[in-house]
Amino acid sequence: MSRAYNFCAGPATLPEPVLRQARDEMLDWRGTGMSVMEMSHRSDEFVEIAETAEQDLRELAGISDDYTVLFMQGGASSQFATIPLNLLGENGRADYVNTGIWSEKAIAEASRYGDIQVAASSEASGFTTVPLQETWNTRPDAAYLHYTPNETIGGLEYDFIPESGNVPLVADMSSTMLSRPLDVSRFGLIYAGAQKNIGPSGLVVVIIRKDLLGKARSETPTMMNYQVIAENGSMYNTPATYSWYLAGLVFKWLKEQGGVDAMAAVNRRKATKLYEFIDGNDFYANPIDPRFRSWMNVPFTLADDALNGTFLKGADERGLLNLKGHRSVGGMRASIYNAMPEAGVDALIDYMAGFAKEHG
Amino acid sequence: MSRAYNFCAGPATLPEPVLRQARDEMLDWRGTGMSVMEMSHRSDEFVEIAETAEQDLRELAGISDDYTVLFMQGGASSQFATIPLNLLGENGRADYVNTGIWSEKAIAEASRYGDIQVAASSEASGFTTVPLQETWNTRPDAAYLHYTPNETIGGLEYDFIPESGNVPLVADMSSTMLSRPLDVSRFGLIYAGAQKNIGPSGLVVVIIRKDLLGKARSETPTMMNYQVIAENGSMYNTPATYSWYLAGLVFKWLKEQGGVDAMAAVNRRKATKLYEFIDGNDFYANPIDPRFRSWMNVPFTLADDALNGTFLKGADERGLLNLKGHRSVGGMRASIYNAMPEAGVDALIDYMAGFAKEHG
Repeated sequence: MSRAYNFCAGPATLPEPVLRQARDEMLDWRGTGMSVMEMSHRSDEFVEIAETAEQDLRELAGISDDYTVLFMQGGASSQFATIPLNLLGENGRADYVNTGIWSEKAIAEASRYGDIQVAASSEASGFTTVPLQETWNTRPDAAYLHYTPNETIGGLEYDFIPESGNVPLVADMSSTMLSRPLDVSRFGLIYAGAQKNIGPSGLVVVIIRKDLLGKARSETPTMMNYQVIAENGSMYNTPATYSWYLAGLVFKWLKEQGGVDAMAAVNRRKATKLYEFIDGNDFYANPIDPRFRSWMNVPFTLADDALNGTFLKGADERGLLNLKGHRSVGGMRASIYNAMPEAGVDALIDYMAGFAKEHG
Repeated sequence: MSRAYNFCAGPATLPEPVLRQARDEMLDWRGTGMSVMEMSHRSDEFVEIAETAEQDLRELAGISDDYTVLFMQGGASSQFATIPLNLLGENGRADYVNTGIWSEKAIAEASRYGDIQVAASSEASGFTTVPLQETWNTRPDAAYLHYTPNETIGGLEYDFIPESGNVPLVADMSSTMLSRPLDVSRFGLIYAGAQKNIGPSGLVVVIIRKDLLGKARSETPTMMNYQVIAENGSMYNTPATYSWYLAGLVFKWLKEQGGVDAMAAVNRRKATKLYEFIDGNDFYANPIDPRFRSWMNVPFTLADDALNGTFLKGADERGLLNLKGHRSVGGMRASIYNAMPEAGVDALIDYMAGFAKEHG
């Protein structure tokens, strides 16, 4: 098979030019006689790769010097503990907004470390909407306010950045990072598992405002202490060097595409045409409040669940892969991150239209 | 440059056939139209990759069903906290043997969580030897006994497995894992950062006796809880899929080489000829007690430190890379793990002989 269109929610499709470059450099990076994955993380070559990646990320996302960028391991799930261990401080209080499965996981883990309050929840709606901020019950003395801008499983996405006053705002941007412009200065901490819009799994990017460093609890494992990782340039121990390199290739590719403004235009177009098709066809449905539909993860159901298997089989045969919805929600899900070409969305819509005609 | 001989201590050289296969499969793994790094970790394809890797590792290392094998993130340094958090239990006591920089790091981190006793230390010798076991002051009620079979920086290696009675023995095998046969049944827990003998950085393999699961302290981050990771087949969250795949390729390669017995023969030969050359030449010296010299990491000094730069420059020009010793010990260090071909050691000795003749 040639390259398929892979709609997996993560690990997700990567830009083909990135994979081609990784392939071409696999045995010999720029005449060094080594693969990047064989390089000492302290070598001049790798340090250049690492620093260039950070610089490109800073440029793409507009990250000022008020923030430290960390390249850590363990994925976003490790951050669910790392964040309270580092930020709860003596007060021990934090507020979380619950909009779905990933919010719930973050809340469950944080609750093991402090006084965690759910400031708002859209559970009553089956997580089909985002609670409006005027309904949130936040505490002005919370150490931070956490939310999940995009729920990868539910396909729910905020269209606003919460106002948190003097309380640092913390966001799990795993699936939206770099998909559009973002005002980083509104946040205390942003984290993003790489395996959606940044690179391969095994890397998590953390962007933390410098005044939030140095507050870790005494029992925090050293490898989870932001201050230690920051002081060591994310090289307190051997980092996930190859993933960091690949993230750097993705950042270069994003710059060549025109950066986050250009990506936002394409991403909006991809999402809009897919939702418009779903809404305009009686055979398919998406349950999410239209205002809060995700640009990145588009769940949809067929008129008859008994056709799911046939739908997936036909999609596979056309090279439209990984459309099966998460086991907790069923149906289908198309994840259309930065690296999914618009032609992939067009091919999906074509297939969906034909399938509806045949089976509808 | 064609492929160099890379003597880096880690991330270290990988077998060239492994890199070739990874290159060839980069854009399309076995006709799936996807790179392995783009696959869902829950897909049939990746689950097969993951399970095959575990099975091959079990076969290579002789790991019985009494043990669970975990593929975790964060490197060995994360394990320095993970181990006490999981194993100290209510008693809170563990004994550690100190034989160098990596032992010290493990001790420092564990000491934050319990009553850690240094049962023996070779610090007085400048860590040039291993304290004989009859001198160890171990506690029969310790939750475990930790040692570092190979000190990567010092170039010191145990030639025996300590007797620990009923106390579980815990070992940092980062640099010796799979380099020779090992009686796993003597251990409670073995851990190994991948970036030396297993694969790329960003992966750490943990082999734990099943009766030691389920003892984590309440404050243990979920992602560090062995029981949780074990129950979820190392997929509680998205694992470092690409690193896991590469480790699997390395395991296949090891089996093709004849397994750990065959590797042991080559590794012994490589180390022996390099030490014999060093000992037989007045220009070079290795400070380690001959009984405890590492097969994997061979530090050596030149008769005149002022020649270090010239030595390294000439080596680089011949494609003999990363011979500079660790900053804490100076001099040179040749790491000669499984993937370093014997021809690489021969080329190094040739160069060293010529250099000594010219400058000695």
